[in-house]
Amino acid sequence: MSVTPQPYTFSQRAQKITSSAIREILKVTERPEIISFAGGLPAPKGFPVDAINTAFDNVLRQNGRSALQYGPTEGYAPLRAWVAQDLARVGANDVSPEEVLIVSGSQQALDMLGKLFIDPGSKVLVESPSYLGALQSFSLFEPAYQAVPTDLGGLIPKGLTDERVQDARFIYALPNFQNPTGTTLNLERRKALVQRCAQANVPIIEDDPYGDLRYAGEDLPGLLGLGRAAGATVIRLGTFSKVLAPGLRLGYIVAPRPIIAKLVQIKQATDLHTATLTQMAVYETIKSGFLKTHLPAVRELYKQQCGYMLTAMQEFFPSDVTWTKPEGGMFLWVTLPGHIDSNELLQRAIQNKVAFVPGEPFYAGVTPQTNTLRLSFVTVPEEKIREGIATLGRLIAESGTGLKAA
Amino acid sequence: MSVTPQPYTFSQRAQKITSSAIREILKVTERPEIISFAGGLPAPKGFPVDAINTAFDNVLRQNGRSALQYGPTEGYAPLRAWVAQDLARVGANDVSPEEVLIVSGSQQALDMLGKLFIDPGSKVLVESPSYLGALQSFSLFEPAYQAVPTDLGGLIPKGLTDERVQDARFIYALPNFQNPTGTTLNLERRKALVQRCAQANVPIIEDDPYGDLRYAGEDLPGLLGLGRAAGATVIRLGTFSKVLAPGLRLGYIVAPRPIIAKLVQIKQATDLHTATLTQMAVYETIKSGFLKTHLPAVRELYKQQCGYMLTAMQEFFPSDVTWTKPEGGMFLWVTLPGHIDSNELLQRAIQNKVAFVPGEPFYAGVTPQTNTLRLSFVTVPEEKIREGIATLGRLIAESGTGLKAA
Repeated sequence: MSVTPQPYTFSQRAQKITSSAIREILKVTERPEIISFAGGLPAPKGFPVDAINTAFDNVLRQNGRSALQYGPTEGYAPLRAWVAQDLARVGANDVSPEEVLIVSGSQQALDMLGKLFIDPGSKVLVESPSYLGALQSFSLFEPAYQAVPTDLGGLIPKGLTDERVQDARFIYALPNFQNPTGTTLNLERRKALVQRCAQANVPIIEDDPYGDLRYAGEDLPGLLGLGRAAGATVIRLGTFSKVLAPGLRLGYIVAPRPIIAKLVQIKQATDLHTATLTQMAVYETIKSGFLKTHLPAVRELYKQQCGYMLTAMQEFFPSDVTWTKPEGGMFLWVTLPGHIDSNELLQRAIQNKVAFVPGEPFYAGVTPQTNTLRLSFVTVPEEKIREGIATLGRLIAESGTGLKAA
Repeated sequence: MSVTPQPYTFSQRAQKITSSAIREILKVTERPEIISFAGGLPAPKGFPVDAINTAFDNVLRQNGRSALQYGPTEGYAPLRAWVAQDLARVGANDVSPEEVLIVSGSQQALDMLGKLFIDPGSKVLVESPSYLGALQSFSLFEPAYQAVPTDLGGLIPKGLTDERVQDARFIYALPNFQNPTGTTLNLERRKALVQRCAQANVPIIEDDPYGDLRYAGEDLPGLLGLGRAAGATVIRLGTFSKVLAPGLRLGYIVAPRPIIAKLVQIKQATDLHTATLTQMAVYETIKSGFLKTHLPAVRELYKQQCGYMLTAMQEFFPSDVTWTKPEGGMFLWVTLPGHIDSNELLQRAIQNKVAFVPGEPFYAGVTPQTNTLRLSFVTVPEEKIREGIATLGRLIAESGTGLKAA
């Protein structure tokens, strides 16, 4: 067999990107006949279309030419100031607008932080499991992942042993309604985490896309405020994707000034700046307290959807299956009996027109637990949730009766 | 003196980013009393604010929820199809929408191409001088630049010797009204370039942000169409920044499918996708031929502005100064007598309330010609152009009379 020579050579990092089998399978889930719990999409019912339309119209009519011109890499000043002030809600009272950098969605923040901190082989600490999109972003910079021990209460600060933290470039953590598990770090662990990281000089990247979507339990202070008090370096990522709409691609990074300064230079080389019009329109939407009235409705919607799924699981899942009960966010995490491989379960589920994301790709720096899977409950209507969960329950039960070997 | 240890370690690449002296100086140029020829900003007069506002309103009213939801990484399908078809105007008739990837402005394309092609030490060929933003993007991936010999007709294909092209990951070229020089590659050189690159297996990155802004001379076929015919790998970058407005941050990459496939994975890790709403609104704006009526007005505006500057230079610049006469775009390039350093000239110019960008930072992989500078003519009103050029002419003349040594 002759091989045609490629007229180009990709970088080492690009050669290492492989087309994930999961992604190929999940493409199928976009077919309308599939009941998909695989997506990470927020519920479009929650998008304030009219308010956003009015905001775009106001901005373009009043400041059209500025809104359509290049803007500063740091972001639109009034939006940076809004973010800085808003952080008081998560217990960080003293944030300056100059510690805020506007980005094109949190995913871009992850890419920029990869550029900032990761050399090939650098140690990076991640929860186990962790957010797949972060692992994909960081991986382009070829880190050596180390998993931090994690249980149903989130990451275990005592697992940050001297050996584990040594020379770590950062720890990446999602304290609220984590993706993929839906678990939340309690106050005691938050305090222990920031103290340990302050003492060990490990920066914390606090990714909090879902914090505003709490529909049970009590608000907890974020790692940013706790960390500042404890002398830790905390870099907080926030986004408007879940409180307004993801199609805007708007997020932000909060960090100490020397880190922001470097990130501004990196952002300039990455995409110059985030769309001026979008920043101005989002600021126009939220500047007079819109989120205070909008968010309760979104939370109620998500709470209801979560309830539908929990009720259905209780009814249809075999008794040897366990799952998390999230206090907010979009996801829950299912642990199957140890002998069931969720990759195989997915194949059968798709044949039966149901989809989810198997747990394996969420693990880095540790042997994956292949008997786990992630379910998203926010976009599927109640009846379809019941139908899909019933199907999954049946397939799981069948896995325990020897059908797997057939 | 004691040094406080940093509680974090940046990557090698981030440590190498230095705050450019030029950037610090140019910050001054944002003061309103400065006549600035330094900017790279298009003229806001040319932004079709009303058409864009109508488009956003239509999209949000008719498809608000889709426009605000996550979208495919490849981009909005109708916009990809529009771009593919539009390429016939530059002589590429057979482009499939699947060879088009939508990005958040051309600058992002440069970042993604750096990720795709550059390992530390990889040889990258650039024009001499070349676009500063590209050099900044690529530099994050630590290439070894090699300059391709360039004259007032653009890059010289005969300069692509065997030694120079060997193991080059790509050549980066701006064939139309180049930034910074304003020069255009003639048809003969275009053909020679794509033939040489086809034969030497060097991919060409054709960056063409200004191609639609031609106001003199005749349209020439782009490297994409010529390259395809000659068997070269051409990756073409386009943008809506200059034909509509830069604050939207919308551009595109055209490339062979295997390259697009890798870039899609890279883009997913970089920012998931470009804002759905922006893509839909831009498509809504241009889908019925808007640019055919809009662009002539923009071209006329730029032609006029360019004329103001050329006239003023003719009148006020000493006879030993030369400059390019662009057929389009936003910039022209000035060559001073060899003994004048444009960095020093800038210091004196700013004291006299005029700014430009000195030539030095545009050079990579070669000794910079420090007696050069870039002028942008598009945003400054006629009288201010005359005033600023008169001041510059005087300062240049003074440089020749020994004042430099004072």
